[in-house]
Amino acid sequence: MTSGKTYDVVGVGNAIVDVLARVPDSFLENAGVEKGIMQLIDADRAVELYGMMGPAREISGGSAANTIAGLGMLGDKAAYVGKVKDDQLGAIFAHDIRALGVTYETPLAPKSVEGDETGRCMVLVTPDGERSMNTYLGVSNHLSPDDIDEEMMAQASWIYLEGYRHDGPDSLAAFSKAVKAAKNAGGKVALTLSDPFCVDRHRDEFLRMCREELDLLFANEHEIVALFQTATLEDALDRAKEELPMAAVTVGPAGVYVIQNGRMVHAPAAPMSRVDATGAGDLFAAGFLHGLVKGRNMLTCGTMGCVAAGEAISHIGARPEEDLKDLFARFGLNG
Amino acid sequence: MTSGKTYDVVGVGNAIVDVLARVPDSFLENAGVEKGIMQLIDADRAVELYGMMGPAREISGGSAANTIAGLGMLGDKAAYVGKVKDDQLGAIFAHDIRALGVTYETPLAPKSVEGDETGRCMVLVTPDGERSMNTYLGVSNHLSPDDIDEEMMAQASWIYLEGYRHDGPDSLAAFSKAVKAAKNAGGKVALTLSDPFCVDRHRDEFLRMCREELDLLFANEHEIVALFQTATLEDALDRAKEELPMAAVTVGPAGVYVIQNGRMVHAPAAPMSRVDATGAGDLFAAGFLHGLVKGRNMLTCGTMGCVAAGEAISHIGARPEEDLKDLFARFGLNG
Repeated sequence: MTSGKTYDVVGVGNAIVDVLARVPDSFLENAGVEKGIMQLIDADRAVELYGMMGPAREISGGSAANTIAGLGMLGDKAAYVGKVKDDQLGAIFAHDIRALGVTYETPLAPKSVEGDETGRCMVLVTPDGERSMNTYLGVSNHLSPDDIDEEMMAQASWIYLEGYRHDGPDSLAAFSKAVKAAKNAGGKVALTLSDPFCVDRHRDEFLRMCREELDLLFANEHEIVALFQTATLEDALDRAKEELPMAAVTVGPAGVYVIQNGRMVHAPAAPMSRVDATGAGDLFAAGFLHGLVKGRNMLTCGTMGCVAAGEAISHIGARPEEDLKDLFARFGLNG
Repeated sequence: MTSGKTYDVVGVGNAIVDVLARVPDSFLENAGVEKGIMQLIDADRAVELYGMMGPAREISGGSAANTIAGLGMLGDKAAYVGKVKDDQLGAIFAHDIRALGVTYETPLAPKSVEGDETGRCMVLVTPDGERSMNTYLGVSNHLSPDDIDEEMMAQASWIYLEGYRHDGPDSLAAFSKAVKAAKNAGGKVALTLSDPFCVDRHRDEFLRMCREELDLLFANEHEIVALFQTATLEDALDRAKEELPMAAVTVGPAGVYVIQNGRMVHAPAAPMSRVDATGAGDLFAAGFLHGLVKGRNMLTCGTMGCVAAGEAISHIGARPEEDLKDLFARFGLNG
């Protein structure tokens, strides 16, 4: 399956450095952090929360960036679009994604401009492996149409859009430019819903995208129910079957339902230990998209997603640590 | 054992953020990195090496800072002196050590001064768990006597000096000020030799300190042999017995020899898996010093050192991840 395009997948999202720390459940309560979700926080709250946190480690993150990092590691032709500042955390973010062979050319917000720095997410990991995320978007929120290179989008077999990235002032204009450039050149469009609260903030736009633009939707069980506002997961899956050409709906330890052209298959989760759920959904998308660009069937795509997600939850941090190619080989998914 | 002093231990060293990545052995060869040691590198080499490295994670480091972080986690009254810049990595370093209850008040190098940034160490971890360190000292190398608070040193039961910190232009003056202030107030002085090459650079000064100043020397087998330039470890241990009131000489997986007043005892290494040797010596010193400030016997101090070192090698990064108090309790070392 060679497309003749320069890129298999181009991702667009919030460029973020994760600040990860293990905490007891009591910390979440004391700090007023809601468990298991992503909360947007402002600079003051970021300072307050960081001051309360114990020692942390910094690992590049960002939902779509994690996905694209996974694709880069798998040897796919991948590019990423997301905004950092010309500061130390921005340099770390750029290094870590480029080191995986990913094209990353989004203009830096200049050092001379006071104010927002490179975005960061304080990820609090409780003993059960759940992660509670507190995101200061910083300059990642200022991605504008000027940052979207139409030629890059036209050279993408797939563009992969992050739901979280819909929060910014210029987001719709930036996404619209990217989608048009990709579609006009015969490219396909995928969206990840990111989280149920993100769906609540942008439901109308996401539903419009489902009707008019999407070739593939990524969601977990909570997000798909939030999107279609159905009573049950089954109802939401039925809606997805009717309204979307392709969808991958993850159901945690139960694996994933993959929908294509009205049919649905199930792939089980990979048997890996759960240390930190950060990045599970992001790496699921990486494995799934890798299967797609390699022309594999839906069951294999779903299984690749589950195995990559299993890698992500087996250690602290969202970026893959084990070589995903080796991992896929161990699970009999290569060749 | 309460000393009436404000601090049990005050450490002085290079304030560094570690940039850790797993690499195959072939990477070391291709990049011209000598395995298993610490090499000082300049800014150009730091850029070159970082450009060759894969994705990394950032975790606060610095040899004496790791030791002091361990003491902070153990609940001892600890302070740290080492220089960072007013930049993002400097803020990370300061947060991570203060979050453990450590007093850290060294003046920041101001943001407005161009040039050196907060120091960093590219730590390349090979599959055997060995780490090869490449350190760009940055502003940590500019610690001067002005950064030494004599009152803080006078309020220290122990000051703990990092061998690596002898490399800077004002190092001798800064250490001299610290040692005088501590000794004049009845405090004791410990030195860690850091590595054999560091010993080669500063042997005369370290031998002078052994004769005139030290109450305790930390070294591993290679460093103590380099210091005394003996043919065998046994000969070096004999010299330490003759010339030092107290010394702890680690011998890797064989544990540690602890010398006090001409007598020597052996404590075995703790049975922990070896993932990454970064910080093993630093955390040994933390465990040992904790025992000392708690008034424990030499065998217990040595065992505490070995258990803390075992924690450090069981994961990526030099700072403790497991609560050392809990770990000591599991090994029957509390109370």
